[in-house]
Amino acid sequence: MLAETQGNVLSDAIRNVQSEIDSLFDALLPVPDDTSARLIEAMRYAAIGGGKRVRPLLVCSTASLFGVSRDAALRAGAAIEAIHVYSLIHDDLPCMDNDDLRHGKPTLHKVYDEATAVLAGDALHALAFEILADDATSEDPFTRSELILTLGKASGMHGMAGGQMMDMVADEEGVEYDLHTITRLQQLKTGALLAASVEMGAILGKVAPQGRAHLRAYARDIGLAFQIADDLLDVEGDIEKAGKALRKDESQGKQTFVTLMGAEKAREQARALVDQAVLRLASYGSEADILRALARFIVERES
Amino acid sequence: MLAETQGNVLSDAIRNVQSEIDSLFDALLPVPDDTSARLIEAMRYAAIGGGKRVRPLLVCSTASLFGVSRDAALRAGAAIEAIHVYSLIHDDLPCMDNDDLRHGKPTLHKVYDEATAVLAGDALHALAFEILADDATSEDPFTRSELILTLGKASGMHGMAGGQMMDMVADEEGVEYDLHTITRLQQLKTGALLAASVEMGAILGKVAPQGRAHLRAYARDIGLAFQIADDLLDVEGDIEKAGKALRKDESQGKQTFVTLMGAEKAREQARALVDQAVLRLASYGSEADILRALARFIVERES
Repeated sequence: MLAETQGNVLSDAIRNVQSEIDSLFDALLPVPDDTSARLIEAMRYAAIGGGKRVRPLLVCSTASLFGVSRDAALRAGAAIEAIHVYSLIHDDLPCMDNDDLRHGKPTLHKVYDEATAVLAGDALHALAFEILADDATSEDPFTRSELILTLGKASGMHGMAGGQMMDMVADEEGVEYDLHTITRLQQLKTGALLAASVEMGAILGKVAPQGRAHLRAYARDIGLAFQIADDLLDVEGDIEKAGKALRKDESQGKQTFVTLMGAEKAREQARALVDQAVLRLASYGSEADILRALARFIVERES
Repeated sequence: MLAETQGNVLSDAIRNVQSEIDSLFDALLPVPDDTSARLIEAMRYAAIGGGKRVRPLLVCSTASLFGVSRDAALRAGAAIEAIHVYSLIHDDLPCMDNDDLRHGKPTLHKVYDEATAVLAGDALHALAFEILADDATSEDPFTRSELILTLGKASGMHGMAGGQMMDMVADEEGVEYDLHTITRLQQLKTGALLAASVEMGAILGKVAPQGRAHLRAYARDIGLAFQIADDLLDVEGDIEKAGKALRKDESQGKQTFVTLMGAEKAREQARALVDQAVLRLASYGSEADILRALARFIVERES
C-alpha cells in the first residue's frame, strides 16, 4: 500500500515534469520565419513530447530539498535534458548505433536527414549552455558558472563522450572489458549526466561541495542501477513498451552487466544498489520521498 | 613600405597565436591511458597544428586594447577555436559537405571514421564551455557567464548552426537567395563567430555593452569581407595554398556573393568593407594596428 502510494506520487511528479519541460522547450524554440525553420522544427521534434525526463526530475527533486524555486530547477533540468537529447540524436545516426526508433517514433535522421540530425544535435548542445548562461534569470553569476562547468565536464571527454568512445572501441575492436572496466565505462557514459543532475540541484541549493557527498553517492548508486536495468531491459524488455530497438547487445556480442554477471545476479545487484541509494538519503525526511521512489522506479521501469 | 611592415607585424602576431593556441590545446588534451584515448587523439588531430587562428587573434588583439592579460585572452580564443574546429569536423562529414581535405591534411573522418568524427566534434564543443566556465582562472564569475552566453548564442540556432541550416536548405531544395538573404545567411554562418571573437575580447576588457558598438561594427564588416573573400577564393584560389577543396560552389550551382555580383564587384565590395572596418577603429592609435592589418589580410589571404 505504501509502495503504491509512493508510486502514485512518483507518477504524478513525472507527469508534471514532463509537461513543464515540454512547455519550456516550446517557449525556447519558436519556429522562425526563414529557411532556418527546419533546424528549429527538427530540434522540437527531438526535444518535445518524448522521454521519461529522469534527469530534470532528479534536478527538481534534489533542488526542492533546499527550497530552490521550481523555475530555476526546471531551467537547469531543461539544460541537462537538451544535452541528453542531443546525445541520443547523434547516437542514433547510421554511423553510430543506426537506430530507427526512439521514444516510440522514428529517429530524427529518418524523419529529416542525417545532416539535419547532426546540426539539430549541435544546436541543442549549444542551447544547453545558452539556457544556463542566460543572465535574465535570477541565478547569481557564480552559480551559473558552477552549473555550466558541472554540465560541461559531465558531457565532455571526461564524461559522456569519453564513455561513448570506450563503448565504441569495444564494439569495433572486439575488446572484452572486465566488470571493473564496464562499470567505469557506464559511470562515464550514463552515470556522469545522472550525477550532474543531482549535483546541479545541490548547486542551485547553494550546498557547498563537501556537503554534497551523500547526494553524489546516491547519484552514483542509481546511475549504475540505471545501466544494469537498461542491460536487463535489452534482454527481457517488451519492444512496444520500450519504444526503441531491443535485443541489440546479444546480437552484437556486446559485454554488458548481464553477460558478465548473468540476469539473476545483475537484478540482485541493481536492487542492492537501489537499497544503498535509499540509505544515502537517511538524513532527509519525507521531502526526499520522490528521490527514494525514483531510485526504485529506475530498476522497475519498462522503457 | 608601411604596408610591408604592417604585414610583418601581422605575420609575427599570427605565428605567435598559432603556437600559443597549439600549446594550450596540447595542455588541455592529455591522452589518457584507457580506450577513450582515441577520442582525445582525434580531438588533438583536428585542434592542433592547423588553421590560421583568425578567431583567437581577434580575441587577443581586441583584448589587448584594454590591457587584458594574454593568458585570459588566449583561453577565450581557444574556446572559440574549439567551436570553430568542431564545426569544421561536422561540416566535413559525408552527410554534410563530404570533404576529404582540411588544412592540407585528410579530414578527421578519413583518418578515423565517421562515428569518431561526430564524437570528437561533440567533445570539442563541450570543451569550449569547460574552458570558459573553469573556476581556476582569474576571471570573475560575471565575466565568465557573459563570455559563455556570447559564445553559446553565436554558435547555436540563432548563429552559426542557423546559418548552416539556411545554407543546407538552399543546396538541397535549390532555393535561390537574393543578396539580402545571402548576406544574412553569411552573417550567421561565419559572421556570428567572428563577431563573438571581438565581443569576447571587449567583455574580457570590461567594456560595457554600449561601448562596444564600434568594435561590433568592425567585426560585422570584416565578417562579411571574410565571406566574400572565401567565395572569391573558391573561384580563383590555388588548391595547394588553400589546403582544401575549391571550385565547389560552381559545381554545386550555389548562389554566392561572386555569382550574384560578379568577381570584380565582389572584390570591390570586400575592399570597401575593409576600408570601412578600418575607419571604425579611428578612436584607437597604433595599439589597434593588428586589427587593421588583420582586416586587410582577410581579403588578401590565399587560404
